[in-house]
Amino acid sequence: MPDSDSALSEHRASGPVSSLNPNLKRQTRRTKRFSTRDYLQGIRDGDRVMLGRAITLIESTRPADREQAHAVLDACTPATANTVRVGVTGIPGVGKSTFIEALGLHLVDQGHRLAVLTVDPSSERSRGSILGDKTRMPNLATHDQAFIRPSPTSGSLGGVARTTRETILLCEAAGYTHVIVETVGVGQSETAVRSMVDAFLLLALANTGDELQGIKRGIMEMADVIVINKADASPETALNETRRTLKQALQLLPERATNWTPPVATCSALRQQGIDAVWQSITEYVDHLRDTGAFDEQRSQQTRHWLRETINHALQQDFYADPKVQSALGDLESDVASGAESAYAAAQMLIETYRSTS
Amino acid sequence: MPDSDSALSEHRASGPVSSLNPNLKRQTRRTKRFSTRDYLQGIRDGDRVMLGRAITLIESTRPADREQAHAVLDACTPATANTVRVGVTGIPGVGKSTFIEALGLHLVDQGHRLAVLTVDPSSERSRGSILGDKTRMPNLATHDQAFIRPSPTSGSLGGVARTTRETILLCEAAGYTHVIVETVGVGQSETAVRSMVDAFLLLALANTGDELQGIKRGIMEMADVIVINKADASPETALNETRRTLKQALQLLPERATNWTPPVATCSALRQQGIDAVWQSITEYVDHLRDTGAFDEQRSQQTRHWLRETINHALQQDFYADPKVQSALGDLESDVASGAESAYAAAQMLIETYRSTS
Repeated sequence: MPDSDSALSEHRASGPVSSLNPNLKRQTRRTKRFSTRDYLQGIRDGDRVMLGRAITLIESTRPADREQAHAVLDACTPATANTVRVGVTGIPGVGKSTFIEALGLHLVDQGHRLAVLTVDPSSERSRGSILGDKTRMPNLATHDQAFIRPSPTSGSLGGVARTTRETILLCEAAGYTHVIVETVGVGQSETAVRSMVDAFLLLALANTGDELQGIKRGIMEMADVIVINKADASPETALNETRRTLKQALQLLPERATNWTPPVATCSALRQQGIDAVWQSITEYVDHLRDTGAFDEQRSQQTRHWLRETINHALQQDFYADPKVQSALGDLESDVASGAESAYAAAQMLIETYRSTS
Repeated sequence: MPDSDSALSEHRASGPVSSLNPNLKRQTRRTKRFSTRDYLQGIRDGDRVMLGRAITLIESTRPADREQAHAVLDACTPATANTVRVGVTGIPGVGKSTFIEALGLHLVDQGHRLAVLTVDPSSERSRGSILGDKTRMPNLATHDQAFIRPSPTSGSLGGVARTTRETILLCEAAGYTHVIVETVGVGQSETAVRSMVDAFLLLALANTGDELQGIKRGIMEMADVIVINKADASPETALNETRRTLKQALQLLPERATNWTPPVATCSALRQQGIDAVWQSITEYVDHLRDTGAFDEQRSQQTRHWLRETINHALQQDFYADPKVQSALGDLESDVASGAESAYAAAQMLIETYRSTS
């Protein structure tokens, strides 16, 4: 199902080539392999089929693929200068897909090239939400200036976030000047996405009371722009009340280093009303960051953050790949399970084993 | 704010001793230290003030505290035989607090001793939700057979989850036969909580359509019992429709190893209606696990999972504490930020440095 999803959305977004053969990507993944140069050439040419394949390469956990993925990424990284990365979050039912499609169409109509990525690690075991990606953003998915890529559907939030971060770099290298990262769920995934975007947008609904329980203070603090969606379905009084409540909640938060007060906008993504004003707010924030030099500072902070993530991941890989660790782990697991050994003592033993092996 | 929260709820839950001095815990944390024997004695005596202090010790990141925390935990671990650990999740606004209070009061009325823990890592930067823990579960918090502990309010999901897992062991050692772990947010935290409880309960609302978008397939797969809450506020037709939709969604899921089909119950936590039936469903599931031997198997699997978490955490601690790693990290960070070095190459260099140091 995730395979068919991503095959489908690549198919949608990749024009005539794969239209001729919707299974192209799958066959490719199974049989054909491409050189690093092939990937780089395809990406630089803005070939969405090759971009999709490169992302699939990045999402692969096979050591050989990882190695090639690193080579591709290293060659791509410089190409990420004047791009805008926007994160979008909001509790389930707030209308994220409809909003992102409306905002996305607004952007491509302005001549921008847009990539839309999703971070949805909440379905670790079964891959994909009950309502899959098929019916989401149909108009944007068929637009030739838009590229939509569903969330990688395996592994931990850390893994999903890392590949999403790397996918942003690939998309920018492929000439997508604007990247929207949708985060699903109200939790850690917001923290991960916040650490890879320039501006973070929080969608809310014009329901008083309950909604605010859904918006954690931590999420409020991450938000650079707040948008009350579904204005068409909400009475003016509820809209005003919610706007007031949100502004009050914002005032409770500590002042920001960037000295920016998040605006609270209102829109109806369904009716495509107020979308331009929302984008205006986002660009005002990004300009504010650029004017104050905070834009570059934030990006290099993010680079350091993701370096740490890369280090921690590589360290674990190297640790569990170590033969002596592998041979010791089994017995220690039984000892800990039986209570004969404590988890902490076991961990210390394994680390000593690991460090003594080279 | 989290300090006052946890101080408050410990004050609430810890009876006359700390009632005399609500600030006892804070003063204690700052000044007095206790021996491992003090902690163990207090825990075995079911002294909630000492239990609270032991949990604070476990949540501490100071190396000395960590070491003592390990000693306390090692001595406690065996005492976790015939306990029941229940995880409760649901999207914001579903009424988790009211439900847990109603279920909790039902349990203590039956003579059980109950600990309620929350896992809420969504507020990493600011600590605590806008609506704090003060107003939550007031009746349960004042019951002398109940112990309520707010989520540790610092660090990553991994850290929060690890301390929560360890807190479960402490509470069980202190004689709490039932532990409810509330997870806030729809995302990774469910996966973490699922890996530390025997039964996982999903709360839903009788709204068709939107709600199901909020319930990820992965969450559905984790749920052993599904409960439609707020039945008092929902028309019978909506309740039936939601029950039908949920049952259909459940049928889409792969069959379980435990060969159990999650029941869909209905209750009104506010009116305390249907709570006994909900608990009946949970006990039926736990009995089912025990009869099939899956109960012990699941717990030892969970032990192995948490051993991995412990190892990974200890490995990172050891890595970044290494002097050679620390001295190399700074330059590599600048090189990566400037694009002179790739994150992957930098990671490999650091790992080699690390492994060559002992």
